[in-house]
Amino acid sequence: MRIVQVPLGSRSYPIKIGPSLLFRLGRECTGLKLGRHCAIISDSNVAPLFAEAARRSLAKAGFITEVFKVPAGETAKSLKTVHFCYDQLAAHRMERQSFIVALGGGVVGDLAGFVAATYLRGIAFVQVPTTLLAQVDSSVGGKVGVNLKAGKNLVGAFYQPRLVLCDLETLRTLPQREYRAGLAEVIKYGIIYDSELFERLERELPRLLRREQKTLAAVVARCCEIKAEVVRKDETESGRRAILNFGHTVGHALETISRYGRYLHGEAISIGQVAAARISACLMGLPDAQVQRIRTLFERAGLPTSVHLSRGQQEKLDTAMRLDKKVRAGEVQFVLARRIGKVVTGQKAPMKLVVRALKP
Amino acid sequence: MRIVQVPLGSRSYPIKIGPSLLFRLGRECTGLKLGRHCAIISDSNVAPLFAEAARRSLAKAGFITEVFKVPAGETAKSLKTVHFCYDQLAAHRMERQSFIVALGGGVVGDLAGFVAATYLRGIAFVQVPTTLLAQVDSSVGGKVGVNLKAGKNLVGAFYQPRLVLCDLETLRTLPQREYRAGLAEVIKYGIIYDSELFERLERELPRLLRREQKTLAAVVARCCEIKAEVVRKDETESGRRAILNFGHTVGHALETISRYGRYLHGEAISIGQVAAARISACLMGLPDAQVQRIRTLFERAGLPTSVHLSRGQQEKLDTAMRLDKKVRAGEVQFVLARRIGKVVTGQKAPMKLVVRALKP
Repeated sequence: MRIVQVPLGSRSYPIKIGPSLLFRLGRECTGLKLGRHCAIISDSNVAPLFAEAARRSLAKAGFITEVFKVPAGETAKSLKTVHFCYDQLAAHRMERQSFIVALGGGVVGDLAGFVAATYLRGIAFVQVPTTLLAQVDSSVGGKVGVNLKAGKNLVGAFYQPRLVLCDLETLRTLPQREYRAGLAEVIKYGIIYDSELFERLERELPRLLRREQKTLAAVVARCCEIKAEVVRKDETESGRRAILNFGHTVGHALETISRYGRYLHGEAISIGQVAAARISACLMGLPDAQVQRIRTLFERAGLPTSVHLSRGQQEKLDTAMRLDKKVRAGEVQFVLARRIGKVVTGQKAPMKLVVRALKP
Repeated sequence: MRIVQVPLGSRSYPIKIGPSLLFRLGRECTGLKLGRHCAIISDSNVAPLFAEAARRSLAKAGFITEVFKVPAGETAKSLKTVHFCYDQLAAHRMERQSFIVALGGGVVGDLAGFVAATYLRGIAFVQVPTTLLAQVDSSVGGKVGVNLKAGKNLVGAFYQPRLVLCDLETLRTLPQREYRAGLAEVIKYGIIYDSELFERLERELPRLLRREQKTLAAVVARCCEIKAEVVRKDETESGRRAILNFGHTVGHALETISRYGRYLHGEAISIGQVAAARISACLMGLPDAQVQRIRTLFERAGLPTSVHLSRGQQEKLDTAMRLDKKVRAGEVQFVLARRIGKVVTGQKAPMKLVVRALKP
């Protein structure tokens, strides 16, 4: 088992990465000094696979566990689902010492984290991410929230979990499309922070695509380390943390205009990152050869790297980008790359250039 | 103008108390280094009286101001209204640097504060409380939130405002019933913390009931000082802050079982405080003479001090109390008084005694 610490003073917590950790869930929670009553929030895809194992492990450690099942998919990341969870928590008499276990992918983690952040003004929660994307990104760092019709993650909080448990074996059951989508965030860490990681991914992508546990363990741990390091320096995104949004301004907007239906998050930010790389070539001097390497790596991972937009869709994209949380004084803010491993935040780009960068 | 500081490190803020402060709102906000775009959230009672003055003051200082009007009354403190506010903020392109002005009583402050705490993971907000209850209690200390059907304030956050502006002249237009309800929180500060304040209230109640500005200024400032002191020591209610809940366990439950329709919050906690005093006489040795003084002061303020409950209502009350946020390991927690000015938290009381203490 690998352990990565997220050092945030009184809100510090460990990320534990390894095989079969789901069976240790109860024991791990025992060390957190929480109440005896907890709720597993999971979705209709993940609950049938892992909820019983999680519940059993918690029961063995003496916890009384309820399981709340929400619909699978990004559309469940809504205020309606939040309300459902609140009502369930109240119906089961959860108290301030009670806690929530988020068992699932990024949607479940963001949703359950937001419920935990706001129920009784905040109860403890534990992340058990079961997708690659959630393990390397959304379960770490305390960003929780839900979508509005007007845009992604417009409602939320900064609220840290007490523990993140990444059971690598849960990734075995992940559909190939979702697994590949997770690789989009993995590749992102290489581009924004660590050129060695990027090179390693170029070398070891076939092993990763075969989900070899040893390679996976090392890569997931390195991604969590980078995220922990970035979050430690800037927990509430007043500055540097924004580098994590590389490819996300365009990516979120693509998700919004397709109403979260067409693209998985990882697919949308794959397109967004390739677009950001092309914009970076024009505005920041990112060498063309590196743009090509970036594009190629996403392609090899089986991810989309461009999109054809009608004029009407282009206008919708513009509107959606302007609703992004990173907008400042009406100006959309981009993260752009100088080279692989080095990005800068707070950059402006003309819409014309964005549209061109998205084309095949 | 009197200024009370709430010292909470990087989340510190001033409470400013005096006449005509509404006309200074814009100037006061200028000092906070916020964006230029803001939203006044107010209700259908308060907006017609003060929203235009607030908007004009903000406009004069260069702010672009939207006014969002929500229905008046406790039933508006709901997730439905929160959702309405989110959609309005998104429709008006509010950004992370934008801010919210809560203009109204406790309901508006709690609601608008929760919206501010969770929109874009938190934007700044300014409290402009226009009721006595909000000025001495709910606008200070950062407890924000909304109700569920299952209970009061079950959803929320700890989120501090950047400034609290108590314009005493806004109290002139307050209906007498609401004003008296505010006195229930004022009297509470005497019971839980300051026997001299309690004695002063016994002497000066007639002047307070006439809303004499000088007496009001001194009393509001003293209440804010006490609240600031209690909150400073325990921002997130891990211990001592719970003394502020004196009379609230029963009070909230009464509000819940009457579906927030019959009692104003101040009326419910008036009944709750008298019940807590009577329970305290039985369990904590609070002298009968002091119980009598407490009861008399609430009566002189024109507040209800008892309630007749049918057996069915008693059972509902019991259920509602068990959903209180202060429940620990299934046990309802009471704040009880040893004497006027000195209370203890975390006390248990048999339901039979609670029911008897509520009777006329």
